[in-house]
Amino acid sequence: MLDVCLLGTGGMMPLKNRFLASCILRLNGHCALLDCGEGTQVALKMSNFTFKPIDVLCVTHLHADHISGLPGLLLSMGNEGRTEKLTILGPFGIKEVVRCLRVIVPGLPFAVECVEMTAEEEHFSLAGFEITAFPVHHRVPCYGYVFEALRQGRFDVERAQAADIPRRYWNALQHGRTVEADGRVLTPDMVLGPARRGLKVTYCVDTRPIAAIAGHAKGSDLFICEGTFGDEEKRARAVETRHMTFREAAKLAEAAQPGELWLTHYSPSLVAPEPYMEQTRKIFARAYAGTDGKRTTLTFSKDE
Amino acid sequence: MLDVCLLGTGGMMPLKNRFLASCILRLNGHCALLDCGEGTQVALKMSNFTFKPIDVLCVTHLHADHISGLPGLLLSMGNEGRTEKLTILGPFGIKEVVRCLRVIVPGLPFAVECVEMTAEEEHFSLAGFEITAFPVHHRVPCYGYVFEALRQGRFDVERAQAADIPRRYWNALQHGRTVEADGRVLTPDMVLGPARRGLKVTYCVDTRPIAAIAGHAKGSDLFICEGTFGDEEKRARAVETRHMTFREAAKLAEAAQPGELWLTHYSPSLVAPEPYMEQTRKIFARAYAGTDGKRTTLTFSKDE
Repeated sequence: MLDVCLLGTGGMMPLKNRFLASCILRLNGHCALLDCGEGTQVALKMSNFTFKPIDVLCVTHLHADHISGLPGLLLSMGNEGRTEKLTILGPFGIKEVVRCLRVIVPGLPFAVECVEMTAEEEHFSLAGFEITAFPVHHRVPCYGYVFEALRQGRFDVERAQAADIPRRYWNALQHGRTVEADGRVLTPDMVLGPARRGLKVTYCVDTRPIAAIAGHAKGSDLFICEGTFGDEEKRARAVETRHMTFREAAKLAEAAQPGELWLTHYSPSLVAPEPYMEQTRKIFARAYAGTDGKRTTLTFSKDE
Repeated sequence: MLDVCLLGTGGMMPLKNRFLASCILRLNGHCALLDCGEGTQVALKMSNFTFKPIDVLCVTHLHADHISGLPGLLLSMGNEGRTEKLTILGPFGIKEVVRCLRVIVPGLPFAVECVEMTAEEEHFSLAGFEITAFPVHHRVPCYGYVFEALRQGRFDVERAQAADIPRRYWNALQHGRTVEADGRVLTPDMVLGPARRGLKVTYCVDTRPIAAIAGHAKGSDLFICEGTFGDEEKRARAVETRHMTFREAAKLAEAAQPGELWLTHYSPSLVAPEPYMEQTRKIFARAYAGTDGKRTTLTFSKDE
């Protein structure tokens, strides 16, 4: 089970009724947080998440509305007694930004490890996810993120029996543990079938629609994409500020064919996204307007 | 008229239903903001204030919950097209903290001037207020602030006539302007009686109750004071963390005799302040529990 929750859906500045764009993913009790603008720690509480399970913060880029909540988040994590390391992924400059922002939270009871990304595409195994970060196209270096929950193959009784593996080791092997017994090294791959389809979530904000996004979003159960402007007449403004219209986001989804498209990162000038959704669904039928607190639980398909 | 509004009343961390302690004062269309924790810019909007009239930000101390909202505030001020200088008063270290926090808001269309206070007591004339900052007793350097709206004397017709000042200059002189006419320099003090009682607001958070606070709060129309803990049994904790109980705040008010006492800066562990107010009012009858958005308009008394 993979829980996904939009903590906020706003761009530029937090509003009375809209937190800054942020998202949390939870898999087997571990969480990955995407961006942390001013108020994200409150949005986390509003959506009934806690700080403790957050293993990794994935920062898309270093504009204030995506990172200004970091000092408060770190302070609250510390006040909660955290001792586990927090990993922060971000574009070049993240180390300096975190160092500077920590001027008001100098002493923390846990380690903060910043990973500064510079390559075209980077891969991490964190919080139980396989995470891929890939560059998108904004005014400053900005990354999109793909989160994959891998799923191992089925337990294959015939293979286990053919390999003469005693039944008492089956459970351990099925749960991914290697067993040394009776002078042999038994590994999970000896009893498991081919890996099955897992779960995939792709998240992109603050970018123009580029082909790489559709490429990465392919096969996603959920594609969360920025839609700064609902009104197609604001396309010139979207081009100028390196954002997207709903229509442009839907076009990416049309190419990628994810299970669902959720829009987020609305301009403060966009009072309500719904009036633009009918048009948007003409391009991609499974498009939904994200709202603060919108959540879903993705589950491994039963038929595979 | 002096408007005062508590934007938030929380200490340590913002909660779902309680912004971090902050206060705004407005006099003749100019505003002074006290502290700016994470979310203060949203709290400002919730209370229907705008950024533009804020001339000065008075920072009590450099703990994160009192300054973490600064980058967002500056960014939003800039997005609003501000060009007027913003003055920030704060204890030693404020310049470095502002410099560091601005790592995520490097370019602003207005100037930010930091005034680093180190003296025992400092005075400023800003946003139409006479501001006095005085040190209080916390774990780090921390200042209390007194805001005074001065009030000039009545126009004295007899004096104006005795000085042989033509009637056509009376209006300008009454409004504080100096007039050069008929070879003479006419100044407001030539036509005004002695200064009358103005308005006074004193604000103190994050401090133990020290005599200097009561001294400064004397004669205040409104004394806004921290009450981190309602339960007197948490007094040891208050001593340890350099905060106050409601009772201790009320004792200061008892000594200072302000028009009203408003409590603020509640511990996250204090779910509701009201249950402790009956006891508090036994010490100082005009004590009120601050709430987010609590406001008043102080007016010059008519009988003076």
